[in-house]
Amino acid sequence: MFKATIDASLLKDSIEILSVLVDEARFRISPDGISVKAVDPANVAMVSFNLESGAFEEFEATESEVGMDLTKINDIMGVAEKNETVKLELREDTQKMEIRIGGFSYTLSLLDPSTIRSEPRIPQLELPAQVILNGNELRKAIKAAEKISDHILLGIEDEIFYMEAEGDTDKVRIDMTRDQLIDMKPGDARSMFSLDYLGDIVKPASKSNEVEINIGRDFPIKLNFVIANGGGTANYLLAPRIESD
Amino acid sequence: MFKATIDASLLKDSIEILSVLVDEARFRISPDGISVKAVDPANVAMVSFNLESGAFEEFEATESEVGMDLTKINDIMGVAEKNETVKLELREDTQKMEIRIGGFSYTLSLLDPSTIRSEPRIPQLELPAQVILNGNELRKAIKAAEKISDHILLGIEDEIFYMEAEGDTDKVRIDMTRDQLIDMKPGDARSMFSLDYLGDIVKPASKSNEVEINIGRDFPIKLNFVIANGGGTANYLLAPRIESD
Amino acid sequence: MFKATIDASLLKDSIEILSVLVDEARFRISPDGISVKAVDPANVAMVSFNLESGAFEEFEATESEVGMDLTKINDIMGVAEKNETVKLELREDTQKMEIRIGGFSYTLSLLDPSTIRSEPRIPQLELPAQVILNGNELRKAIKAAEKISDHILLGIEDEIFYMEAEGDTDKVRIDMTRDQLIDMKPGDARSMFSLDYLGDIVKPASKSNEVEINIGRDFPIKLNFVIANGGGTANYLLAPRIESD
Repeated sequence: MFKATIDASLLKDSIEILSVLVDEARFRISPDGISVKAVDPANVAMVSFNLESGAFEEFEATESEVGMDLTKINDIMGVAEKNETVKLELREDTQKMEIRIGGFSYTLSLLDPSTIRSEPRIPQLELPAQVILNGNELRKAIKAAEKISDHILLGIEDEIFYMEAEGDTDKVRIDMTRDQLIDMKPGDARSMFSLDYLGDIVKPASKSNEVEINIGRDFPIKLNFVIANGGGTANYLLAPRIESD
Repeated sequence: MFKATIDASLLKDSIEILSVLVDEARFRISPDGISVKAVDPANVAMVSFNLESGAFEEFEATESEVGMDLTKINDIMGVAEKNETVKLELREDTQKMEIRIGGFSYTLSLLDPSTIRSEPRIPQLELPAQVILNGNELRKAIKAAEKISDHILLGIEDEIFYMEAEGDTDKVRIDMTRDQLIDMKPGDARSMFSLDYLGDIVKPASKSNEVEINIGRDFPIKLNFVIANGGGTANYLLAPRIESD
Repeated sequence: MFKATIDASLLKDSIEILSVLVDEARFRISPDGISVKAVDPANVAMVSFNLESGAFEEFEATESEVGMDLTKINDIMGVAEKNETVKLELREDTQKMEIRIGGFSYTLSLLDPSTIRSEPRIPQLELPAQVILNGNELRKAIKAAEKISDHILLGIEDEIFYMEAEGDTDKVRIDMTRDQLIDMKPGDARSMFSLDYLGDIVKPASKSNEVEINIGRDFPIKLNFVIANGGGTANYLLAPRIESD
């Protein structure tokens, strides 16, 4: 069984964290909360997301797994006004999720979890370097890079965290010193990433004051941030692109 | 002759009431005011609209009938700023309408009324049930239904007014008790309507605090509301769709 | 050499003045400031623009000429927040412009000026009549005309400045008396212009409180306004269309 009440904007933000990578997801429900692990169709990026029971206004659940169409939930959430809450209730007999917002009740058919791509194994990577920065500043940098290129180089050099994108003729570079970052653990780091992916991932991340980036040399990047005032976490893993210069 | 001054936003709203169903309309002008009756090209919905002379700041008219292109008037009204007034004057000799907004004067060619579809006969229906509700709440319900279906069921059951839409797999339902409505006259009511039409009709209706809905079993719906602080009325009649389940 | 600091919104507005007519421009840099003269690809309109060194927060320059892609600068300026400043520095060795906004540094490849259409010779016209009016009011008139036609007649008659557009069936006319204008020098004036061009030109002009229009009979129009609180000027010259009635 599953029955929960949650702030509508928190649910919207949670769905966005997943929907930048996948259209459907398997939600693992337990008495402790909800978690999702998903990989994008091209196997380039992974997301691992969890929302603890404490992040909900009400939460009652036994172990179960449900498949949901993220686009549909997103559509439904469009009805919610600011500060409204959403009530969720699983109808196990019919395999439907009952979603109530104000006077509206939606009956959403669940997807058979076995038809959704299985959960990826998130690799345990030891990455040598780390920076913590404001999500909105990270997003501004990514948006600036998107103007001229489709990939971006992230690295650390002389205790400076840099993001650099090069187009056919032009270049953009953002240098951030230890002072401009919230925290930094310097190390051997220089990897290139697709802006298609990074641009999507920083959208939900931009709402967070502290985004932790773990990075190495030609290694995947790990991007973590806290949601729901500490009641949950979102973690992205993005594979590097090969530098061809 | 026809010469009138009216608040620009009131004229805009009046045009919208008509333009959700038709592109051109025959305006019947008399010393008492202006009225329009029109039916959409597919014969599914009718509108009957009137604006009394008292709703105008100035109004002088003899009996006449003019055809106007609603899209054009709408375009012209885009120039009007908030709280501006619009002066209208019919030039009978040239069959043009002179429209003045601030320093702008438009000379709009009238359409020959005989080229516009003739006025429909609005059937006098005795519908068994009635609900009165806030226009904006009605619109929210219709928008929610549009997310998952192209038709909606409206009905009354056990003194509850319900709106229900069913998609291929999902369902949305809004229940409104007598307390949540402004007024209700229960009766045998359950009819299905196209959301294409109802979605258009509730746009102008959403600005009204009180929308009166008259409904029966597999009968057309009548949707009435007052405009211009009581200086006019808008009435829609929408044919039901046949339930195919 | 060239090194300058300028308010971001002032630079954006300056680029817009040029980009409504051309995509690339030759910037003439001198110790006194920056100037551009350009003609649109169809030879219908010319712009002459200058920004004095005093309009910059810092300005150091020797004589030089650089070609720049206006679309790219515009894209880059999208990163600037309100009240931010932009630092420009010319790297003569590599023929690149270094653009710094906050923590971002862009390296923009310059265009070879010889590949950009050469500066037009701006004809010295003695136009008989002149009106000075608010840029936003001018824009409103042009937008009203665009609703019904693709050309507009500007003229003076009996000390009234008029703008008149005629569509296939409809007409819009704006009359402005001496009182409604900031200033007027009446004279023989009546010329027709393409709204495609005039609509573009009034976009940047609409931000100015005083736009000076010089006009004659079937002659080009000159449209001048001050930018940067008097630290620069923008001048457009637009060829008339032939009246075919």
